[in-house]
Order: sequence, then structure tokens, then C-alpha cells
Amino acid sequence: MNFISNPKQKDWPKLAERAKGSEKGMIESIVQSVFNRVKKEGDQAVLNYTKKFDQIDLSSMEVSEKELKSQANKVALRLQNAIALAFDNIKKFHQAQEIKKQEITTTKGVVCWREQRGIDTVGLYIPGGTAPLFSSLLMLGIPAQLARCGQIIICTPPDKSGEITPSIAYVATLLGKVRVFKVGGAQAIAAMTFGTESIPKVDKIFGPGNRYVTTAKQLATNYNVAIDMPAGPSEVLVIADESSNPEFVAADLLSQAEHGDDSQVILLATNEQILEKTMQAIQQQLKNLPRAAIAKEALNQSRFLLFNDIKEAFSFSNYYAPEHLILALENPRQYIPWIQNAGSVFLGNYSCESAGDYASGTNHTLPTNGFAKNYSGVSLDSFVKKITFQELSKEGIQNIGPAIEILAEAEGLAAHKYAVSIRLKTLKNV
Amino acid sequence: MNFISNPKQKDWPKLAERAKGSEKGMIESIVQSVFNRVKKEGDQAVLNYTKKFDQIDLSSMEVSEKELKSQANKVALRLQNAIALAFDNIKKFHQAQEIKKQEITTTKGVVCWREQRGIDTVGLYIPGGTAPLFSSLLMLGIPAQLARCGQIIICTPPDKSGEITPSIAYVATLLGKVRVFKVGGAQAIAAMTFGTESIPKVDKIFGPGNRYVTTAKQLATNYNVAIDMPAGPSEVLVIADESSNPEFVAADLLSQAEHGDDSQVILLATNEQILEKTMQAIQQQLKNLPRAAIAKEALNQSRFLLFNDIKEAFSFSNYYAPEHLILALENPRQYIPWIQNAGSVFLGNYSCESAGDYASGTNHTLPTNGFAKNYSGVSLDSFVKKITFQELSKEGIQNIGPAIEILAEAEGLAAHKYAVSIRLKTLKNV
Repeated sequence: MNFISNPKQKDWPKLAERAKGSEKGMIESIVQSVFNRVKKEGDQAVLNYTKKFDQIDLSSMEVSEKELKSQANKVALRLQNAIALAFDNIKKFHQAQEIKKQEITTTKGVVCWREQRGIDTVGLYIPGGTAPLFSSLLMLGIPAQLARCGQIIICTPPDKSGEITPSIAYVATLLGKVRVFKVGGAQAIAAMTFGTESIPKVDKIFGPGNRYVTTAKQLATNYNVAIDMPAGPSEVLVIADESSNPEFVAADLLSQAEHGDDSQVILLATNEQILEKTMQAIQQQLKNLPRAAIAKEALNQSRFLLFNDIKEAFSFSNYYAPEHLILALENPRQYIPWIQNAGSVFLGNYSCESAGDYASGTNHTLPTNGFAKNYSGVSLDSFVKKITFQELSKEGIQNIGPAIEILAEAEGLAAHKYAVSIRLKTLKNV
Repeated sequence: MNFISNPKQKDWPKLAERAKGSEKGMIESIVQSVFNRVKKEGDQAVLNYTKKFDQIDLSSMEVSEKELKSQANKVALRLQNAIALAFDNIKKFHQAQEIKKQEITTTKGVVCWREQRGIDTVGLYIPGGTAPLFSSLLMLGIPAQLARCGQIIICTPPDKSGEITPSIAYVATLLGKVRVFKVGGAQAIAAMTFGTESIPKVDKIFGPGNRYVTTAKQLATNYNVAIDMPAGPSEVLVIADESSNPEFVAADLLSQAEHGDDSQVILLATNEQILEKTMQAIQQQLKNLPRAAIAKEALNQSRFLLFNDIKEAFSFSNYYAPEHLILALENPRQYIPWIQNAGSVFLGNYSCESAGDYASGTNHTLPTNGFAKNYSGVSLDSFVKKITFQELSKEGIQNIGPAIEILAEAEGLAAHKYAVSIRLKTLKNV
């Protein structure tokens, strides 16, 4: 951990730096060759890659309904109940995001509005194996269903016996009306980008993954496929004052640090003691952490910063633009107006990041790597397009037509002007 | 024009093909070299490119307030009045898009909501010279102001005497609180991507442009800058029935065709006579069109398709996913539920595309090239981030904490679980 007292603004760029991915060029070239082969050879290429990378020789990739149910049945009842609670909360929060159609009369006779339509085919990539993220399937599948997407395609890697993770199968059955394929890695993203004999081409790809998967998603955008957002390692920034509980803060920082050795955790405080006590609590908690080795790696890149001025701490936070921002502060709501850049914000001592990761209802697919400056997290919006509509009556075109003629003429677009003139002329002659 | 009667579904991919940009690789390599130099040399590189491409040797790029006013004053009063009408309508329509903060209690003691924040620094690219698009500055500047973006940077190329287009200067003064720079082409996009001594680095770049500009915007996304949407040539699809007026339809098709030789216009009808009459009207109107040569080029790639079944016509339209969709149909509102993919829809004989291009209030920055399948047009949403917030009370964490512990454990994330356990334990001990 790096401890820095009152860093000068000129040092902020260095302090806000994220871990750089190594071997970027190598990964890109491997992924491009996966894309080329899947585009050309379809299913056969995908099956070959699955044999090579997942060490399983499959004859078909789609998970049958029977197979899905049989895997889902392996999920213990207590986990089923916990998933049900998370499902309800995520659904409630995302349901409220639907825009209501609102017709606006901008000028008499000119009515404009927007309507929402689900993206037709969406592809959800869900990591499986040793780190199965069924929670990501909740976070992506629920808004996809609410958006009434035409087809929901799920790709998740098979284990060495050719089966998918039971918890992922269980969530898939809860969602219903989804198609699940046993395929992981860059080959899954390539298959959803081009479509193969068995896997449909999708319009937009969502979901987390390792560097091969995130590189593949970026590459997919070159082939007219949209993606949820650019990827980067996970991160949390905590701002703490005297009202914070060092054990809670330590636990929140560690729950980020255990994600991966490139995770980043930042603690800002206005009081040196808070930093020290939190450090001590971290050392204590690390002892019992199964993923302590990973967390320690991540902590090496973490920063503990002391700010004399709480406002300055918020300025740094906005500069950093954290994926997760925890305000372990007294009366946290008073600071909300100061927040400009963050993915998701957790207020007070009892709003731990784990709550948002799993079950409070907010989405956990959030912008990292500073992208909270220019991207929102995943929401219902991510699964829909908003189409604008307009209807002009005869009176409407008469009211705004003359202005349009002048505007079109000023841009040198005579046909644009004529499309109005011919209508106005016809109406005059009636 | 290509006339095809009842095309089979297997031929749809070919009929929905867009014009392919030639010289893509060459343009990419030029743009990359512009980026490299601007990143390294800043203002000096930008000034050198301006001298080379715009044939003007500038000493500084920022347009002073005095200069802006003096250019704005050149705009005739009738154009000022027309701009005022468009400004009002665009503002009214986009103002209604603001999301209202809505706190959702997902479980007792767990409150979640979203808040909107303007993206801090946005860059608007506005073509000038022979095709000045002051209307694009209205369409981008108004929502940027409504979103309360921190800084609005406008780049627009200078003319050969080193001045910017008066109508663009006029709209800039109406917007207020903007900074305008005399710089065009890929060098403008590079400057906003990296920032130079005089031009700020921006978080998101918007606006239309030639192939160099759109290639540069795509490249900018490799450097953590967001863009409004991927680019493609403009297009319109009209569905017409017996109630349509062939002269109106012809004028709408031509107002798309005059944009550029790669523009695409498509007419679908359920009656051969409509197609024939519209063709005749096009030939007639072409005679008086200043940009007839461009329009004729575009018409070469256009398609006139006859469908026996109106529902089939809508299926083709959804497959094509047009930027602009005009329903020259009787009782057009009855067809709205059939529309899945389109950028903006114009209903009935008096809703010409020019209305939406300039003054009805809807945005004219729309997804082309089939991107209406997975992207929305520009709206207030494009200029904001939506941040999620959550606040759990002691009761809240007690209500959902046990479920979170089970979920985190199932994903093998012990620290995530512990962040909840330590809180529940503390509450038990109180």
C-alpha cells in the first residue's frame, strides 16, 4: 500500500493511473486469428477451440432444456432462495427505468415523442469454471427480459465433463426464454459476432471476462456489433471520516482486492488515524482470506491518501472516476451534489459494495478504468433503442415549414427546402 | 434506381447492403499519422495540418468573443428568426428527456436510485466551408447545455481567410458558454482526443464529418474517449400506399439523395403505380436541383421495392433498420407497433424528413448503416452519465445481508461475504 499525505494536484495523474495490461499485442493477434477462423469455419472452429482451451470434445454446443433443468436441480435450496431475493430486487430497480411515452407538442401541429424497443438479439457472456458469475447473469438477463429483447443468447464455458455451472443453469431457467450455449473465451464472442450454424449472430454483446474475452468484445465492434462498455479491471474508492468503522472499510477494500491482482483499491481520509486503523484491520482480515495472495498483489498497487480538506478528497475522486465509490462518512447524502464521476455510489456504513454486487437491486456492470467519466453502467437503457417519432399536421408544416425553407437554403440543401415548399404549395392550392 | 418486385427473403441481405467506403486502409493510415503527430507536437502539429489542408496559416485557433460576435452579426435577420424557432423546438423536446430522480425501496431498508450528471467536457465537431452544418450545432449544443456539461468545445474548420462560418458563429453565441476553435478534419478530432496547449482534451466527441473525421472519431475510442455513435452514409426508407403523394415522396427521397453520392434511398410500396409515379416525379424534380449530379449518383444505388403485403414491407424495413423511416401511409399510427428498428420515424404526408433535420424538435444525429438495430440516436442521454446510488440502513443490511453471504460464498468470494458478516456481527452485538 502506498501512503501519501496531501498529494499535490500535479501528482494526481500518477495517483489515478490504472494497472496496464501486459501482452496486449499478443492477445490481440490471437483473438484476431480466432475471429478469422470462426468467421470462415463456423461451428467446427468453435468446437476445435473448445477442445483446445476447455479440454472437452463436444459434439454440440446448445444446452438442451433437459440438460439445463438437470444442472439447475443441483443448486441447493438456500442458494435458490438467496437468488430469488436478488432477482426480485434487481427486477424492481430496473423495471422503474422504463421511459414512459410522452408526446411533446413543440409547435402547434408538430408532435414529437420517443418509444423504446428492445434490441432484437443480445448475447450475454457469463464466465464459468472456477469463477462462475451467475450474479452477472442476473444483472444482464433481468434487464434483457424487461426490455423484451427478441432473443437472449447466453454463452458460458463448459467444465471438463462438458457441463455448465449449475448456478448459471439455475438462473437461466428462472429467466426463461433464453438459449444457452456451452462455449467460452474469444471463440464465444466470435461466434456471437458472426453467427455460426448453431449460434445466432447477435446485435449487442454484454458481460465480463478475462483479457481474451474483453479484447474480443472490443474487436467485435469492428463488425457492426455493439458492446455494453469498454472493459478494465475492477476498482473501489472509499472516502472515510471519523464516523467510519475501520473493520468495515477494510472488508470493503479487501472484497475489491480479491477480484484479481490488477484490481485497485483507494482509500481517502481526512484523518491519519483512519488510514492507520484501516491498514491494521486489513492485515488482520488478510489472515483468514482464501484469496489472500491475489488480494496482496492488488494491495501493492493500492493507494491510501490523506486529504486535509474533504472537498479536495471529492475532487480527487471525481478525477479518478471510480467504478465503485463508498462514502463511509457521517450524513453521506450531503456530499452527493459533489459527485460528478462514479459508476455506483454506496452511502454510509451499512451500504457495502457486496450489496450492490449481488442483491440491493442496482446493476453491478459498471464503467471502470476511468470510463465513469463518459459512460454509465448497464441499465435497462443498455438493452433498448429509443426511436424518435414525429407527426406534423397540415397546420404543423404551415407553422414551421417557412423556417425550414430558410434553414435548408442556408445550408445549401435545395431538395430539403423543396420537400417543404411542395407541401406548402399544395396546401395553398387546396 | 433498381426496381424489384416481391423480393424473396434470401435476397434481403443484398438489398439491405450499404455503399462500402473505398480507400479505408489508406484513410486509416493517414489519420493514425495525424494522431501521432498531434499527440507529440500539440498545437504546432494542428496548425501545420490546418495550413496544409485548409490553406490558411493561423497564429492561434481559439475564436475570441469579439470575432465570434462579428461573424455572428453577418447572419441575416430572417435566418436568425428561423434558427430561433428551431432552437425552441429542439430545446422543448430534449428538455423532456431528463430523468426524474426516483428512489426505489427494493427491500425494506434498501433504497436505490439513479442521478444524472452531465459529461464534464464534450467536443462538438461541426463541418464548415461549402457545407456548413449549423443545424448540427443546434442538435448537439442544445442537449449539451441542458445536460449541464462542464465545458463545451466546438471545432469547426476556418475558411481561406481564416474565419468560421457566420451561421455557426451565430448558433455558438445563442448557446453561450462554449469555446470555439478554428480547426477541422482529423486534426480537430486528434486535438480533442489528446488535448493540446490551447484545445482541451474532451471526454466524448460528437458530430458529423467526412471519412477522415469519422475514421478519426473511431480511432479516438482507442484512447479512452467516447463518441456519439459509429458513422455511415445517410439513408431514408419510405413506405408508401395509395394515400401518398408521389411528388412529396419524390422530394423526400431526393432530399436524402442530395446529401452525398453514397446516400441511400429506398422506396417500398404495395402498388406498382406508386413506384412508377414517384419515379416520374423524381425525374421531373431532378431538373431543377442544383445538386442533381450527386443525387443521381445516390439514386443509382437506390432501390424501389414492391411488396404485396404491407406487413412484409415493414419486415424488410426492420431488417434494413433505416436511419430515417417515412410512413407515407393512411392512418400511419396503426403501424407503429410493427416498427422495431429505425432511427427516427416520420408519420404521414406532412412529416417530411427536412422537418426532423431542422426544426420539429427531434434530433437529427441518428444511427445509419444498420446501426438502428443496436444504437439510439443522440438525445439528452448522450450527454449525461447515470450514476446509481444505494443506501442501506441497519435494517436493510439485516434484511438482505444473509442472502448476500450465500451468494458471495457460491461465487467463491470470501471477502465479499465477510464485508457483510462483519456488519451483521457488529449489529448483533449492539
